[in-house]
Amino acid sequence: MRGAAREGPVMTSYEDALAEILRNVAPLEAEEAPLLRCVGQVMVEDVRSAYDLPALDTCGPDGYAVRSEDVCGASPAAPVVLRIAGTVRAGRLPRHRLRPGEAVRVMTGSPVPQGADCVVPFESTDEPGDKNGPRADDPSEVKILRAGTPGANIRRAGSNAAKGSLVLPRGTSVGPAQISALAAMGRSTVNVVRRPVVAIVSTGDELTSLRSPLRPGRSYDCNSTAIAALVSHYGGIPRVLGIARDNEASLMAKLRRGLSADAVITSGGVSKGDYDLVRLVVAKLGAVILSRIGMGPGASFAFGLLERDATGAAAAAIPIFALSGPPVGCLTNFETLVRPALLKMLGFRQLSHPVADAVVEDGIRERKPMPFVKWARVSGRRGQDHVVLNGGDGLGSLAAMAMANCLTVIPEGTVVRRGDRLPVLPLDWTRD
Amino acid sequence: MRGAAREGPVMTSYEDALAEILRNVAPLEAEEAPLLRCVGQVMVEDVRSAYDLPALDTCGPDGYAVRSEDVCGASPAAPVVLRIAGTVRAGRLPRHRLRPGEAVRVMTGSPVPQGADCVVPFESTDEPGDKNGPRADDPSEVKILRAGTPGANIRRAGSNAAKGSLVLPRGTSVGPAQISALAAMGRSTVNVVRRPVVAIVSTGDELTSLRSPLRPGRSYDCNSTAIAALVSHYGGIPRVLGIARDNEASLMAKLRRGLSADAVITSGGVSKGDYDLVRLVVAKLGAVILSRIGMGPGASFAFGLLERDATGAAAAAIPIFALSGPPVGCLTNFETLVRPALLKMLGFRQLSHPVADAVVEDGIRERKPMPFVKWARVSGRRGQDHVVLNGGDGLGSLAAMAMANCLTVIPEGTVVRRGDRLPVLPLDWTRD
Repeated sequence: MRGAAREGPVMTSYEDALAEILRNVAPLEAEEAPLLRCVGQVMVEDVRSAYDLPALDTCGPDGYAVRSEDVCGASPAAPVVLRIAGTVRAGRLPRHRLRPGEAVRVMTGSPVPQGADCVVPFESTDEPGDKNGPRADDPSEVKILRAGTPGANIRRAGSNAAKGSLVLPRGTSVGPAQISALAAMGRSTVNVVRRPVVAIVSTGDELTSLRSPLRPGRSYDCNSTAIAALVSHYGGIPRVLGIARDNEASLMAKLRRGLSADAVITSGGVSKGDYDLVRLVVAKLGAVILSRIGMGPGASFAFGLLERDATGAAAAAIPIFALSGPPVGCLTNFETLVRPALLKMLGFRQLSHPVADAVVEDGIRERKPMPFVKWARVSGRRGQDHVVLNGGDGLGSLAAMAMANCLTVIPEGTVVRRGDRLPVLPLDWTRD
Repeated sequence: MRGAAREGPVMTSYEDALAEILRNVAPLEAEEAPLLRCVGQVMVEDVRSAYDLPALDTCGPDGYAVRSEDVCGASPAAPVVLRIAGTVRAGRLPRHRLRPGEAVRVMTGSPVPQGADCVVPFESTDEPGDKNGPRADDPSEVKILRAGTPGANIRRAGSNAAKGSLVLPRGTSVGPAQISALAAMGRSTVNVVRRPVVAIVSTGDELTSLRSPLRPGRSYDCNSTAIAALVSHYGGIPRVLGIARDNEASLMAKLRRGLSADAVITSGGVSKGDYDLVRLVVAKLGAVILSRIGMGPGASFAFGLLERDATGAAAAAIPIFALSGPPVGCLTNFETLVRPALLKMLGFRQLSHPVADAVVEDGIRERKPMPFVKWARVSGRRGQDHVVLNGGDGLGSLAAMAMANCLTVIPEGTVVRRGDRLPVLPLDWTRD
């Protein structure tokens, strides 16, 4: 592929571009990660429980462990009186074996004493309702006010997880519930696909670093920070390398620094201008796989591979995503072309956005020459999603992008009318 | 309220409990946060653009800036030949004022030269299509193959954001698009509600730290880590304080350490057992506001306030959430009662889970004595969500919880049948 860019940008459809990108990225290797660091990572091991959890039959509510045959027929009108043979706290093993006519005070999580086959909760006994902490009066008898059936209010050994049972299959992504389950099995680490390190380079002589005053004709470098936020959001580790100037040496130096990462993302410099050097330099450091996609905004997009020194143990080539320079095109490229690749590198199998079906509240009259991604606002109403396509029009492109909560793709040459249905891709960035 | 717990646990409905909790928490104060640290935080300032962005009329595509009257009627069959008067790169100000019969080579983002009123993209000229980087032949003339109308392919000054216009209103939560907009305006920090620091305490003599071998009757402390993951996920800063043992001194020491946080979360020790000391100790350090809720799993839940020394400048009292001990109850409490409070502290106005309407695939025959939160699995099919309620039954409670991707509330005394519709609350923890 080396030198392919010399033939000039050939437009690739979005679908073909995405397929080509996904062919060229693969899940990264595994790492043993501490529980609190692995949220959002994908497990590469089947986790089975090494124990029966709980290890023994355990009391559900606080109450009295009894023999069900002793309390048969008990009622508030005809309570059964049992002798209290002792107390078992959670974490202690019961020493007493229940004999007929006896009850043992038990707490949530206490192992069930031998001889007992059900637990009567405090509410079904004469235990005082206003108790808080240990009981001071140390009673010797309890009145049971309700019968219990064998097994009632007992959590069977292994009911949380049976020894050897598969609790978390490989391919599970780790969230709080998975962490709870892993910790309940005593695991403090788990084997997951490691997070990709992503080098981020902005290009352009016109770019000014944040906080500097803005001279006419210049613009602030907003893409680096936005891309870093997206990389973090989707589970990668961003490494912002700063601004490459519009000359080959500057750009090449930045891209070479990116070779120690797992992927490189640039923005700008990928159009047809005299100083759009990204494809030129990528071709020198590896190969341009595709240039220019048939979907806007952000048609000026390229994807390629950068070759590493053959001496390293890591992958011989790493993917480079050359995103469009204007902010909306850049973020559209990320959501539609980089996000699926990052998720694949992270080991996810579900790579596409969830899609909702929405009723259009306004419309688009202009027929676009290629499929067009509209940043829009979706909201649910009476069980149906509704989307406003032009709510940001007239606000300026930055405010319009910032108020959107979904993307929707308007097919080429199509007029969209109020009441039409469109698939929308909700963005999961915010909780508004 | 001090000492209220002595009257014993009175059951509060879920709705009343949530309302009471939200009455007792408030958004935290603001902080000036760097862009990459404030994802998920809520802005407390209106951000207006200090500049017109772009500051000048700017060229959209790479091409030639021309006078539209000069190229009137141009076509491939009848091209208009213009003299190339110079080149303007992005970030440089054009020095040349266009005269009739002239064109200036311009790049995406170049300011429009004076005298020009439209841009003809390279594709509509005789510019070679296979060019990559600067043009070597330095031509003196260009053939224009298509006419341009006044304003065509020019981005007007202020079209991204007009000077003084409101781009991000207060109350906006910060995500990648907001970061892009803030950075485009030159902002490197933004004024947001600060993140709550949440102290996390597990209670119980039966708890064993991860990695230690598990003795019979003991269980691993899985709640601390899961709660920490949830606090992080929703935007807080977890501070895990470890395990309090089942005696007043141990629990009081842990809770006192939590007083420097913005909220405290405990798990376990909040039921009716002899060693359930959480409410007792909370009453001594402040007040128990509510004990026990009418919704399971996790009915053993309490909420209170811990009083700080009056000397501190911070809030005089901080909320304490005493969650149920068993893992499923603990996580259910968090999602339904702590999450809304955390979001309120973070400044969000939308505090409830999004709700989807789903068709039940199986059913629940057992009538529950109180509303019951079922961890379930929802999936979309032909534009309609479907929920499987019992997919995890028989797997053990840990695996069942770990395979769920939504919660659904089964009303008390209700039988649910296949084909019924239920509201489901999707969990946004994972991307599976």
